[in-house]
Amino acid sequence: MAKQARAVATRHQIIDAAAATFDRLGFERASLGEIVEASSGLTKGALYFHFKSKDDLAQAVMDRQHAISIAAVEAISSTAAPALEQIVMLCHEMGRQIVDDPIVRAGIRLTLEFSAGTAPGKPGPYQDWIEACRHLSEIAIAEGDLLPTIEPPTLARFVISAFTGVQMVSNVLDRRADLEQRIDQMWQFLLPGILAPDRRLDSDKIRQARWARDPAMA
Amino acid sequence: MAKQARAVATRHQIIDAAAATFDRLGFERASLGEIVEASSGLTKGALYFHFKSKDDLAQAVMDRQHAISIAAVEAISSTAAPALEQIVMLCHEMGRQIVDDPIVRAGIRLTLEFSAGTAPGKPGPYQDWIEACRHLSEIAIAEGDLLPTIEPPTLARFVISAFTGVQMVSNVLDRRADLEQRIDQMWQFLLPGILAPDRRLDSDKIRQARWARDPAMA
Repeated sequence: MAKQARAVATRHQIIDAAAATFDRLGFERASLGEIVEASSGLTKGALYFHFKSKDDLAQAVMDRQHAISIAAVEAISSTAAPALEQIVMLCHEMGRQIVDDPIVRAGIRLTLEFSAGTAPGKPGPYQDWIEACRHLSEIAIAEGDLLPTIEPPTLARFVISAFTGVQMVSNVLDRRADLEQRIDQMWQFLLPGILAPDRRLDSDKIRQARWARDPAMA
Repeated sequence: MAKQARAVATRHQIIDAAAATFDRLGFERASLGEIVEASSGLTKGALYFHFKSKDDLAQAVMDRQHAISIAAVEAISSTAAPALEQIVMLCHEMGRQIVDDPIVRAGIRLTLEFSAGTAPGKPGPYQDWIEACRHLSEIAIAEGDLLPTIEPPTLARFVISAFTGVQMVSNVLDRRADLEQRIDQMWQFLLPGILAPDRRLDSDKIRQARWARDPAMA
Protein backbone atom coordinates (compact mmCIF):
# COMPACT_ATOMS: atom_id res chain seq x y z
CA MET A 1 0.00 0.00 0.00
CA ALA A 2 2.82 2.40 0.96
CA LYS A 3 4.55 1.30 -2.23
CA GLN A 4 1.47 2.08 -4.28
CA ALA A 5 1.10 5.52 -2.69
CA ARG A 6 4.75 6.17 -3.51
CA ALA A 7 4.16 5.17 -7.14
CA VAL A 8 1.20 7.57 -7.40
CA ALA A 9 3.27 10.37 -5.87
CA THR A 10 6.12 9.69 -8.32
CA ARG A 11 3.69 9.70 -11.24
CA HIS A 12 2.34 13.07 -10.11
CA GLN A 13 5.85 14.42 -9.71
CA ILE A 14 6.71 13.33 -13.27
CA ILE A 15 3.54 14.93 -14.68
CA ASP A 16 4.33 18.19 -12.85
CA ALA A 17 7.85 18.23 -14.29
CA ALA A 18 6.55 17.37 -17.77
CA ALA A 19 3.91 20.13 -17.60
CA ALA A 20 6.50 22.72 -16.53
CA THR A 21 8.74 21.64 -19.42
CA PHE A 22 5.98 21.52 -22.08
CA ASP A 23 4.71 24.90 -20.87
CA ARG A 24 8.19 26.40 -21.25
CA LEU A 25 9.41 24.73 -24.44
CA GLY A 26 6.41 23.27 -26.26
CA PHE A 27 6.14 19.61 -27.27
CA GLU A 28 8.83 19.51 -29.96
CA ARG A 29 11.61 21.15 -27.99
CA ALA A 30 10.87 19.37 -24.70
CA SER A 31 13.12 16.32 -24.23
CA LEU A 32 12.82 13.54 -21.67
CA GLY A 33 16.23 14.65 -20.35
CA GLU A 34 14.85 18.16 -19.83
CA ILE A 35 11.84 16.73 -17.99
CA VAL A 36 14.02 14.65 -15.67
CA GLU A 37 16.07 17.77 -14.95
CA ALA A 38 12.91 19.80 -14.18
CA SER A 39 11.87 17.23 -11.56
CA SER A 40 13.62 17.23 -8.23
CA GLY A 41 15.51 13.98 -7.91
CA LEU A 42 13.84 11.72 -10.46
CA THR A 43 15.87 9.42 -12.67
CA LYS A 44 15.32 8.60 -16.33
CA GLY A 45 14.68 5.03 -15.16
CA ALA A 46 11.76 6.12 -12.97
CA LEU A 47 10.35 8.17 -15.83
CA TYR A 48 10.50 5.23 -18.27
CA PHE A 49 8.99 2.95 -15.64
CA HIS A 50 5.86 5.16 -15.58
CA PHE A 51 5.66 6.49 -19.16
CA LYS A 52 6.60 4.84 -22.43
CA SER A 53 7.18 8.01 -24.45
CA LYS A 54 6.96 11.78 -24.66
CA ASP A 55 3.55 11.32 -26.33
CA ASP A 56 2.38 9.38 -23.31
CA LEU A 57 3.54 12.14 -21.01
CA ALA A 58 1.79 14.80 -23.09
CA GLN A 59 -1.41 12.76 -22.92
CA ALA A 60 -1.08 12.46 -19.13
CA VAL A 61 -0.67 16.24 -18.82
CA MET A 62 -3.75 16.84 -21.01
CA ASP A 63 -5.72 14.26 -18.98
CA ARG A 64 -4.84 16.04 -15.72
CA GLN A 65 -5.80 19.39 -17.24
CA HIS A 66 -9.11 17.86 -18.32
CA ALA A 67 -9.72 16.64 -14.74
CA ILE A 68 -8.89 20.09 -13.32
CA SER A 69 -11.32 21.75 -15.76
CA ILE A 70 -14.11 19.33 -15.02
CA ALA A 71 -13.64 19.78 -11.26
CA ALA A 72 -13.98 23.57 -11.62
CA VAL A 73 -17.08 23.20 -13.81
CA GLU A 74 -18.68 20.88 -11.25
CA ALA A 75 -17.80 23.06 -8.28
CA ILE A 76 -19.18 26.18 -9.97
CA SER A 77 -22.34 24.37 -11.15
CA SER A 78 -23.05 23.30 -7.59
CA THR A 79 -23.11 26.88 -6.26
CA ALA A 80 -26.45 28.62 -5.76
CA ALA A 81 -25.62 31.34 -8.33
CA PRO A 82 -27.88 31.80 -11.37
CA ALA A 83 -26.57 29.92 -14.43
CA LEU A 84 -25.57 33.07 -16.32
CA GLU A 85 -23.43 34.18 -13.38
CA GLN A 86 -21.94 30.68 -13.33
CA ILE A 87 -20.85 31.14 -16.98
CA VAL A 88 -19.13 34.42 -16.04
CA MET A 89 -17.51 32.68 -13.04
CA LEU A 90 -16.33 29.84 -15.25
CA CYS A 91 -14.57 32.22 -17.66
CA HIS A 92 -12.79 34.00 -14.82
CA GLU A 93 -11.86 30.68 -13.20
CA MET A 94 -10.45 29.36 -16.52
CA GLY A 95 -8.44 32.59 -16.75
CA ARG A 96 -7.15 32.18 -13.20
CA GLN A 97 -6.15 28.57 -13.86
CA ILE A 98 -4.23 29.55 -17.00
CA VAL A 99 -2.33 32.22 -15.06
CA ASP A 100 -1.69 30.12 -11.92
CA ASP A 101 -1.48 26.49 -12.98
CA PRO A 102 1.33 25.21 -15.24
CA ILE A 103 -0.63 21.99 -15.89
CA VAL A 104 -3.54 23.94 -17.36
CA ARG A 105 -1.20 26.15 -19.39
CA ALA A 106 0.74 23.14 -20.68
CA GLY A 107 -2.48 21.27 -21.53
CA ILE A 108 -3.77 24.21 -23.56
CA ARG A 109 -0.43 24.72 -25.30
CA LEU A 110 -0.22 21.01 -26.21
CA THR A 111 -3.82 20.98 -27.49
CA LEU A 112 -3.07 23.94 -29.75
CA GLU A 113 0.23 22.48 -30.96
CA PHE A 114 -1.35 19.13 -31.77
CA SER A 115 -4.19 20.77 -33.66
CA ALA A 116 -2.13 23.32 -35.62
CA GLY A 117 -1.13 22.43 -39.15
CA THR A 118 -3.10 19.94 -41.16
CA ALA A 119 -3.41 17.00 -38.77
CA PRO A 120 -6.97 16.32 -37.59
CA GLY A 121 -7.66 18.45 -34.52
CA LYS A 122 -8.07 17.05 -31.04
CA PRO A 123 -11.01 18.74 -29.37
CA GLY A 124 -9.06 18.91 -26.11
CA PRO A 125 -10.49 21.13 -23.43
CA TYR A 126 -12.63 23.17 -25.83
CA GLN A 127 -15.32 20.57 -26.23
CA ASP A 128 -15.69 20.21 -22.43
CA TRP A 129 -15.92 23.93 -21.85
CA ILE A 130 -18.40 24.43 -24.70
CA GLU A 131 -20.58 21.62 -23.40
CA ALA A 132 -20.58 23.05 -19.85
CA CYS A 133 -21.40 26.50 -21.18
CA ARG A 134 -24.16 25.15 -23.44
CA HIS A 135 -25.80 23.41 -20.51
CA LEU A 136 -25.61 26.55 -18.34
CA SER A 137 -26.99 28.70 -21.20
CA GLU A 138 -30.07 26.49 -21.39
CA ILE A 139 -30.67 26.95 -17.69
CA ALA A 140 -30.05 30.72 -18.00
CA ILE A 141 -32.78 30.92 -20.65
CA ALA A 142 -35.14 28.97 -18.37
CA GLU A 143 -34.21 31.31 -15.50
CA GLY A 144 -35.17 34.27 -17.67
CA ASP A 145 -31.71 35.87 -17.71
CA LEU A 146 -30.89 35.19 -21.38
CA LEU A 147 -33.05 36.17 -24.34
CA PRO A 148 -35.19 33.17 -25.32
CA THR A 149 -34.04 33.59 -28.94
CA ILE A 150 -30.43 32.70 -28.02
CA GLU A 151 -29.30 29.30 -29.33
CA PRO A 152 -27.36 27.71 -26.45
CA PRO A 153 -24.86 25.75 -28.63
CA THR A 154 -24.08 28.86 -30.70
CA LEU A 155 -23.65 31.11 -27.67
CA ALA A 156 -21.53 28.49 -25.88
CA ARG A 157 -19.26 28.08 -28.89
CA PHE A 158 -18.83 31.85 -29.17
CA VAL A 159 -18.19 32.43 -25.45
CA ILE A 160 -15.47 29.74 -25.35
CA SER A 161 -13.97 30.95 -28.64
CA ALA A 162 -13.91 34.58 -27.51
CA PHE A 163 -12.43 33.55 -24.15
CA THR A 164 -9.73 31.55 -25.96
CA GLY A 165 -8.78 34.51 -28.13
CA VAL A 166 -8.87 36.93 -25.20
CA GLN A 167 -6.42 34.80 -23.21
CA MET A 168 -4.14 34.15 -26.22
CA VAL A 169 -3.90 37.77 -27.32
CA SER A 170 -3.44 38.79 -23.67
CA ASN A 171 -0.53 36.33 -23.56
CA VAL A 172 1.06 37.62 -26.79
CA LEU A 173 0.70 41.31 -25.91
CA ASP A 174 0.88 41.42 -22.10
CA ARG A 175 2.02 38.00 -20.81
CA ARG A 176 -1.54 37.73 -19.42
CA ALA A 177 -0.98 40.51 -16.85
CA ASP A 178 -4.29 42.10 -17.96
CA LEU A 179 -6.26 38.88 -18.42
CA GLU A 180 -8.89 39.39 -15.72
CA GLN A 181 -9.64 42.90 -16.99
CA ARG A 182 -9.90 41.64 -20.60
CA ILE A 183 -12.33 38.88 -19.59
CA ASP A 184 -14.43 41.51 -17.81
CA GLN A 185 -14.44 43.70 -20.95
CA MET A 186 -15.59 40.72 -22.98
CA TRP A 187 -18.68 40.44 -20.76
CA GLN A 188 -19.23 44.18 -20.91
CA PHE A 189 -19.54 43.96 -24.70
CA LEU A 190 -21.43 40.69 -24.76
CA LEU A 191 -24.07 41.03 -22.03
CA PRO A 192 -26.18 43.85 -23.55
CA GLY A 193 -26.82 41.72 -26.64
CA ILE A 194 -27.82 38.52 -24.85
CA LEU A 195 -29.61 39.60 -21.64
CA ALA A 196 -33.40 39.46 -21.45
CA PRO A 197 -34.72 43.07 -21.50
CA ASP A 198 -35.98 43.02 -17.91
CA ARG A 199 -32.56 41.82 -16.65
CA ARG A 200 -30.50 44.57 -18.28
CA LEU A 201 -30.29 46.55 -15.03
CA ASP A 202 -28.56 43.54 -13.44
CA SER A 203 -25.78 43.64 -16.02
CA ASP A 204 -23.10 44.95 -13.60
CA LYS A 205 -23.97 42.41 -10.92
CA ILE A 206 -23.74 39.57 -13.47
CA ARG A 207 -20.40 40.84 -14.82
CA GLN A 208 -18.96 40.95 -11.34
CA ALA A 209 -19.86 37.35 -10.48
CA ARG A 210 -16.76 35.47 -9.28
CA TRP A 211 -16.45 32.01 -7.83
CA ALA A 212 -15.17 32.02 -4.23
CA ARG A 213 -13.04 28.89 -4.30
CA ASP A 214 -12.81 26.71 -1.25
CA PRO A 215 -9.40 27.72 0.16
CA ALA A 216 -8.67 24.02 0.71
CA MET A 217 -8.55 23.61 -3.09
CA ALA A 218 -5.91 26.30 -3.63
CA MET B 1 18.02 43.89 -64.35
CA ALA B 2 16.81 40.48 -65.55
CA LYS B 3 19.18 38.99 -62.99
CA GLN B 4 17.64 41.09 -60.22
CA ALA B 5 14.10 40.12 -61.26
CA ARG B 6 15.18 36.48 -61.15
CA ALA B 7 16.58 36.94 -57.65
CA VAL B 8 13.29 38.48 -56.48
CA ALA B 9 11.34 35.60 -58.03
CA THR B 10 13.61 33.04 -56.36
CA ARG B 11 13.23 34.80 -53.00
CA HIS B 12 9.45 34.68 -53.37
CA GLN B 13 9.60 31.01 -54.33
CA ILE B 14 11.65 30.24 -51.22
CA ILE B 15 9.25 32.17 -48.96
CA ASP B 16 6.29 30.27 -50.48
CA ALA B 17 7.99 26.94 -49.82
CA ALA B 18 8.95 28.00 -46.29
CA ALA B 19 5.39 29.15 -45.54
CA ALA B 20 3.92 25.86 -46.77
CA THR B 21 6.39 23.95 -44.60
CA PHE B 22 5.94 26.09 -41.45
CA ASP B 23 2.17 25.90 -41.91
CA ARG B 24 2.32 22.11 -42.08
CA LEU B 25 4.97 21.33 -39.46
CA GLY B 26 5.44 24.39 -37.26
CA PHE B 27 8.78 26.10 -36.71
CA GLU B 28 10.52 23.40 -34.69
CA ARG B 29 9.81 20.46 -36.96
CA ALA B 30 10.38 22.35 -40.24
CA SER B 31 13.91 21.76 -41.57
CA LEU B 32 15.74 23.60 -44.33
CA GLY B 33 15.86 20.26 -46.20
CA GLU B 34 12.07 20.01 -45.94
CA ILE B 35 11.71 23.56 -47.27
CA VAL B 36 13.98 22.85 -50.25
CA GLU B 37 11.89 19.76 -50.97
CA ALA B 38 8.64 21.78 -50.79
CA SER B 39 9.94 24.19 -53.43
CA SER B 40 9.97 23.07 -57.03
CA GLY B 41 13.55 22.86 -58.17
CA LEU B 42 15.41 25.00 -55.64
CA THR B 43 18.75 23.92 -54.22
CA LYS B 44 20.02 24.29 -50.68
CA GLY B 45 22.69 26.58 -52.15
CA ALA B 46 20.07 28.98 -53.51
CA LEU B 47 18.28 28.95 -50.18
CA TYR B 48 21.44 29.78 -48.21
CA PHE B 49 22.31 32.49 -50.73
CA HIS B 50 19.07 34.28 -49.85
CA PHE B 51 18.55 33.38 -46.18
CA LYS B 52 21.09 32.86 -43.43
CA SER B 53 18.94 30.66 -41.18
CA LYS B 54 15.53 29.18 -40.43
CA ASP B 55 14.90 32.18 -38.15
CA ASP B 56 15.53 34.49 -41.10
CA LEU B 57 13.04 32.55 -43.20
CA ALA B 58 10.41 32.66 -40.47
CA GLN B 59 10.89 36.41 -40.22
CA ALA B 60 10.48 36.76 -44.01
CA VAL B 61 7.22 34.77 -43.89
CA MET B 62 5.91 36.95 -41.04
CA ASP B 63 6.96 40.10 -42.92
CA ARG B 64 5.06 38.98 -46.02
CA GLN B 65 2.02 38.16 -43.93
CA HIS B 66 2.25 41.63 -42.39
CA ALA B 67 2.33 43.19 -45.89
CA ILE B 68 -0.71 41.12 -46.99
CA SER B 69 -2.65 42.22 -43.87
CA ILE B 70 -1.79 45.87 -44.33
CA ALA B 71 -2.80 45.74 -48.02
CA ALA B 72 -6.23 44.34 -47.09
CA VAL B 73 -6.72 46.96 -44.36
CA GLU B 74 -5.84 49.74 -46.80
CA ALA B 75 -8.05 48.41 -49.58
CA ILE B 76 -11.03 48.02 -47.23
CA SER B 77 -10.45 51.47 -45.66
CA SER B 78 -10.54 53.04 -49.10
CA THR B 79 -14.02 51.70 -49.90
CA ALA B 80 -17.05 53.96 -49.44
CA ALA B 81 -18.57 51.67 -46.77
CA PRO B 82 -19.28 53.08 -43.29
CA ALA B 83 -16.43 52.34 -40.86
CA LEU B 84 -18.42 49.81 -38.82
CA GLU B 85 -19.14 47.80 -41.98
CA GLN B 86 -15.44 48.03 -42.79
CA ILE B 87 -14.63 46.38 -39.44
CA VAL B 88 -17.03 43.54 -40.28
CA MET B 89 -15.46 43.26 -43.76
CA LEU B 90 -11.99 43.16 -42.23
CA CYS B 91 -12.87 40.25 -39.95
CA HIS B 92 -14.32 38.25 -42.85
CA GLU B 93 -11.34 39.10 -45.05
CA MET B 94 -8.90 37.99 -42.32
CA GLY B 95 -10.89 34.75 -42.09
CA ARG B 96 -10.74 34.25 -45.85
CA GLN B 97 -6.99 34.88 -45.90
CA ILE B 98 -6.42 32.33 -43.13
CA VAL B 99 -8.41 29.72 -45.06
CA ASP B 100 -6.95 30.49 -48.52
CA ASP B 101 -3.42 31.77 -48.03
CA PRO B 102 -0.67 29.53 -46.61
CA ILE B 103 1.53 32.60 -45.99
CA VAL B 104 -1.08 34.14 -43.69
CA ARG B 105 -1.66 30.80 -41.93
CA ALA B 106 2.07 30.23 -41.48
CA GLY B 107 2.60 33.81 -40.24
CA ILE B 108 -0.11 33.38 -37.61
CA ARG B 109 1.17 29.96 -36.56
CA LEU B 110 4.73 31.28 -36.22
CA THR B 111 3.56 34.32 -34.21
CA LEU B 112 1.72 32.06 -31.79
CA GLU B 113 4.61 29.60 -31.51
CA PHE B 114 7.11 32.37 -30.83
CA SER B 115 4.90 33.90 -28.19
CA ALA B 116 3.89 30.69 -26.39
CA GLY B 117 5.83 29.70 -23.30
CA THR B 118 7.65 32.28 -21.27
CA ALA B 119 9.65 34.18 -23.90
CA PRO B 120 8.54 37.79 -24.36
CA GLY B 121 5.75 37.87 -26.94
CA LYS B 122 6.08 39.35 -30.40
CA PRO B 123 3.02 41.46 -31.15
CA GLY B 124 2.99 40.07 -34.70
CA PRO B 125 -0.13 40.74 -36.71
CA TYR B 126 -2.33 41.42 -33.67
CA GLN B 127 -1.04 44.91 -33.05
CA ASP B 128 -1.66 45.91 -36.70
CA TRP B 129 -5.18 44.54 -36.70
CA ILE B 130 -6.04 46.13 -33.37
CA GLU B 131 -4.71 49.50 -34.54
CA ALA B 132 -6.72 49.32 -37.80
CA CYS B 133 -9.84 48.35 -35.86
CA ARG B 134 -9.30 51.10 -33.27
CA HIS B 135 -9.05 53.72 -36.00
CA LEU B 136 -12.22 52.45 -37.72
CA SER B 137 -14.08 52.34 -34.38
CA GLU B 138 -13.34 56.01 -33.84
CA ILE B 139 -14.77 56.84 -37.24
CA ALA B 140 -17.80 54.60 -36.57
CA ILE B 141 -18.54 56.59 -33.41
CA ALA B 142 -18.25 59.85 -35.36
CA GLU B 143 -20.55 58.37 -38.03
CA GLY B 144 -23.12 57.63 -35.32
CA ASP B 145 -23.11 53.85 -35.81
CA LEU B 146 -21.41 52.93 -32.52
CA LEU B 147 -22.53 54.03 -29.07
CA PRO B 148 -20.54 57.12 -28.08
CA THR B 149 -19.68 55.43 -24.75
CA ILE B 150 -17.59 52.75 -26.53
CA GLU B 151 -13.84 53.06 -25.93
CA PRO B 152 -12.25 52.41 -29.35
CA PRO B 153 -9.03 50.77 -28.02
CA THR B 154 -11.03 48.42 -25.77
CA LEU B 155 -13.48 47.46 -28.49
CA ALA B 156 -10.67 46.97 -31.02
CA ARG B 157 -8.74 44.73 -28.65
CA PHE B 158 -11.85 42.64 -27.96
CA VAL B 159 -12.89 42.31 -31.62
CA ILE B 160 -9.41 41.10 -32.65
CA SER B 161 -9.17 38.81 -29.62
CA ALA B 162 -12.61 37.30 -30.24
CA PHE B 163 -11.81 36.88 -33.95
CA THR B 164 -8.54 35.14 -33.04
CA GLY B 165 -10.31 32.69 -30.75
CA VAL B 166 -13.12 32.09 -33.24
CA GLN B 167 -10.65 31.12 -35.97
CA MET B 168 -8.50 28.98 -33.63
CA VAL B 169 -11.39 27.02 -32.12
CA SER B 170 -12.88 26.65 -35.62
CA ASN B 171 -9.53 25.16 -36.67
CA VAL B 172 -9.34 22.76 -33.71
CA LEU B 173 -12.95 21.56 -33.99
CA ASP B 174 -13.77 21.87 -37.70
CA ARG B 175 -10.55 22.55 -39.63
CA ARG B 176 -12.06 26.01 -40.28
CA ALA B 177 -14.85 24.63 -42.51
CA ASP B 178 -17.37 26.71 -40.54
CA LEU B 179 -15.22 29.82 -40.11
CA GLU B 180 -17.32 32.30 -42.10
CA GLN B 181 -20.47 31.25 -40.24
CA ARG B 182 -18.70 31.54 -36.86
CA ILE B 183 -17.46 35.06 -37.69
CA ASP B 184 -21.03 35.99 -38.62
CA GLN B 185 -22.32 34.63 -35.29
CA MET B 186 -19.70 36.70 -33.48
CA TRP B 187 -21.19 39.85 -35.01
CA GLN B 188 -24.70 38.68 -34.24
CA PHE B 189 -23.84 38.54 -30.53
CA LEU B 190 -21.68 41.65 -30.51
CA LEU B 191 -23.65 44.21 -32.54
CA PRO B 192 -26.69 44.63 -30.24
CA GLY B 193 -24.40 45.73 -27.41
CA ILE B 194 -22.36 48.28 -29.37
CA LEU B 195 -24.73 49.81 -31.95
CA ALA B 196 -26.20 53.27 -31.36
CA PRO B 197 -29.94 52.82 -30.54
CA ASP B 198 -31.15 54.46 -33.77
CA ARG B 199 -28.98 52.12 -35.87
CA ARG B 200 -30.23 48.85 -34.36
CA LEU B 201 -32.58 48.23 -37.28
CA ASP B 202 -29.53 48.22 -39.59
CA SER B 203 -27.94 45.36 -37.67
CA ASP B 204 -28.51 42.75 -40.40
CA LYS B 205 -27.17 44.99 -43.15
CA ILE B 206 -24.02 45.70 -41.10
CA ARG B 207 -23.51 42.00 -40.33
CA GLN B 208 -23.75 41.14 -44.00
CA ALA B 209 -21.10 43.63 -45.13
CA ARG B 210 -18.42 41.89 -47.19
CA TRP B 211 -15.53 43.30 -49.10
CA ALA B 212 -15.75 42.66 -52.86
CA ARG B 213 -12.08 42.14 -53.66
CA ASP B 214 -10.69 43.34 -56.95
CA PRO B 215 -10.47 40.04 -58.91
CA ALA B 216 -6.97 41.09 -60.07
CA MET B 217 -5.79 40.67 -56.45
CA ALA B 218 -7.02 37.09 -56.17
